[in-house]
Amino acid sequence: MPARIGVVGFGTIGKRVAEAITRQPDMELVGIVKTKPDYTAELAVKLGYKLYAANQDSLRKFEEAGLPVKGVLEDLLENVDLVVDATPGGVGAKNKTIYEQKGVPAIFQGGEKADVAEVSFNSLCNYEEAIGRRYVRVVSCNTTGLLRILCTLNKAYGLKRVYATIVRRAADPKEIKRGPVNAIKPDPATMPSHHGEDVKTVLRDLDIVTAAVVVPTTLMHVHVVYAKLARQVSNDEVIELLANTPRIVLVEANKGVTSTADIVELARDLGRKRYDIPELIVWRESIVVKGDEMYWMQAVHQESIVVPENIDAIRAMLKLTTNAMDSIALTDKTLGVKRGTLI
Amino acid sequence: MPARIGVVGFGTIGKRVAEAITRQPDMELVGIVKTKPDYTAELAVKLGYKLYAANQDSLRKFEEAGLPVKGVLEDLLENVDLVVDATPGGVGAKNKTIYEQKGVPAIFQGGEKADVAEVSFNSLCNYEEAIGRRYVRVVSCNTTGLLRILCTLNKAYGLKRVYATIVRRAADPKEIKRGPVNAIKPDPATMPSHHGEDVKTVLRDLDIVTAAVVVPTTLMHVHVVYAKLARQVSNDEVIELLANTPRIVLVEANKGVTSTADIVELARDLGRKRYDIPELIVWRESIVVKGDEMYWMQAVHQESIVVPENIDAIRAMLKLTTNAMDSIALTDKTLGVKRGTLI
Repeated sequence: MPARIGVVGFGTIGKRVAEAITRQPDMELVGIVKTKPDYTAELAVKLGYKLYAANQDSLRKFEEAGLPVKGVLEDLLENVDLVVDATPGGVGAKNKTIYEQKGVPAIFQGGEKADVAEVSFNSLCNYEEAIGRRYVRVVSCNTTGLLRILCTLNKAYGLKRVYATIVRRAADPKEIKRGPVNAIKPDPATMPSHHGEDVKTVLRDLDIVTAAVVVPTTLMHVHVVYAKLARQVSNDEVIELLANTPRIVLVEANKGVTSTADIVELARDLGRKRYDIPELIVWRESIVVKGDEMYWMQAVHQESIVVPENIDAIRAMLKLTTNAMDSIALTDKTLGVKRGTLI
Repeated sequence: MPARIGVVGFGTIGKRVAEAITRQPDMELVGIVKTKPDYTAELAVKLGYKLYAANQDSLRKFEEAGLPVKGVLEDLLENVDLVVDATPGGVGAKNKTIYEQKGVPAIFQGGEKADVAEVSFNSLCNYEEAIGRRYVRVVSCNTTGLLRILCTLNKAYGLKRVYATIVRRAADPKEIKRGPVNAIKPDPATMPSHHGEDVKTVLRDLDIVTAAVVVPTTLMHVHVVYAKLARQVSNDEVIELLANTPRIVLVEANKGVTSTADIVELARDLGRKRYDIPELIVWRESIVVKGDEMYWMQAVHQESIVVPENIDAIRAMLKLTTNAMDSIALTDKTLGVKRGTLI
């Protein structure tokens, strides 16, 4: 019998994770929890998802809007083996007490503090640590992007020191109240940024410093990373390693993939729903290996990169498989997540 | 008698350098050279600048437009002790043969290759090297910003290694044909970027790696810099050093200077013409010193940061003063360039 999963929150992450769950042979989407009867609620109904309201107040609003609703969050919790909480940062921690009362294991997102869960998670780093756990946190998009490649390099060569500059998108495509519209904003102006600390919730002993600025774009984040490896490697070795790592894709500026806009255009041309790019994108030309030093540039699609990790976290927690690579392979096959190249 | 200076090119840099020359007690602006009789030519006439056409073809256009014109480039060269070439990248190198024929010393801008000149120049780094030279190149805005602080740190403590990420503005405020409008573009996608090499045309032995991305903004560039110093220093020592260095200004995000937009707003509130900010702006909170490591974030106003350096280069080449600090003090006093703080 497939594992029965609920999704709490139906925003950028929630709607994608819900859909990803419906594509898994070993999972069943029991229902989703929403606060407001807006157009995404209508869409969820049309897609056949069972709607639950966040609370009694919310339930009334759904009934007034004439949208079919199965009950409230607590009702959903009676019928699931696990919930994925994809509510805005801070709400997940509040919801946790409800999950605890109902004895339901939960996955939280990177917007929550690390201590909301027993384990902060990335599939390529520490799948094993999440096996059988009740509370797991899938780290944020930027941290997920960093961890995919840093864990890969760390396992292969060892990492001594990492400096990463994170050039963040200002807003998601649908947002209209965020900026900057015409500025570059250190975020925060203090250094280091929290991203390095967040990486260390998974890759604990890494010596990493990060800084972040926000810029006026909606498509993707870009990272510039400088790393010192524990041993000398060649450029070819690194390229081969990355080309054979799940969820990492190399693109080439000299083939025309010159910016995040080109990456998105390619995803659109590939017919990808919502132009989602759950892969970490690394510019092949940017990779420089000089003795034990390496630097590169990479792009992270903030809306979708954490989706595969949420699916794997479910599998680890519910022991659907105890082998990381088996879970990653199944997730990537069902979701069409590539390795090596996008095309 | 003041030194007689001509300015060739009246774009973003040229118009600012021309104006700065008129404010120097030891210099006289003989005239400016333009190609087209556009609105900036009209403005130059209104400001009382003597107009010269780039060539005979250009001269006809000025006459047809009814704008008073004194002659062509070669005529200007008869009457000057030095020209500042502020033409678009690559044009300066072509013009150089004309300057050589006429025996006129010339300053070139950072858009030219380093070999156009005998010396690449930054006032705080190598004023002495430009004394009496015939061809000097004032490095680009990003390189000028980096050099001001790197030479300062290098003189005080020594620099072992620098990693800098340059987040570039996409276009100047008046430009309408450049982008990106909604993307982050590695520029170039190969690493390192040329900026590190350009820094080394002045600070020759520095071990520096740079990378650059372009983002959709017009106001300023932002740099994130990680440096290894030759000795241990304290945070207070560094703050005091920077606060007492000409042309470097500290701003505080916790006083509301949170982005490049706030820096520009402050320059506007200060009544600065065109909101120019020739100072290098460093976010005070961003400065972290840990043993022999230091990192920080800084902002560079691409349109105006090289103006004071052009004035100093004139003074060095014509031996108006052989003391760097004397020239810097006079330039900064006449142009209102601050140290320490903007207010």
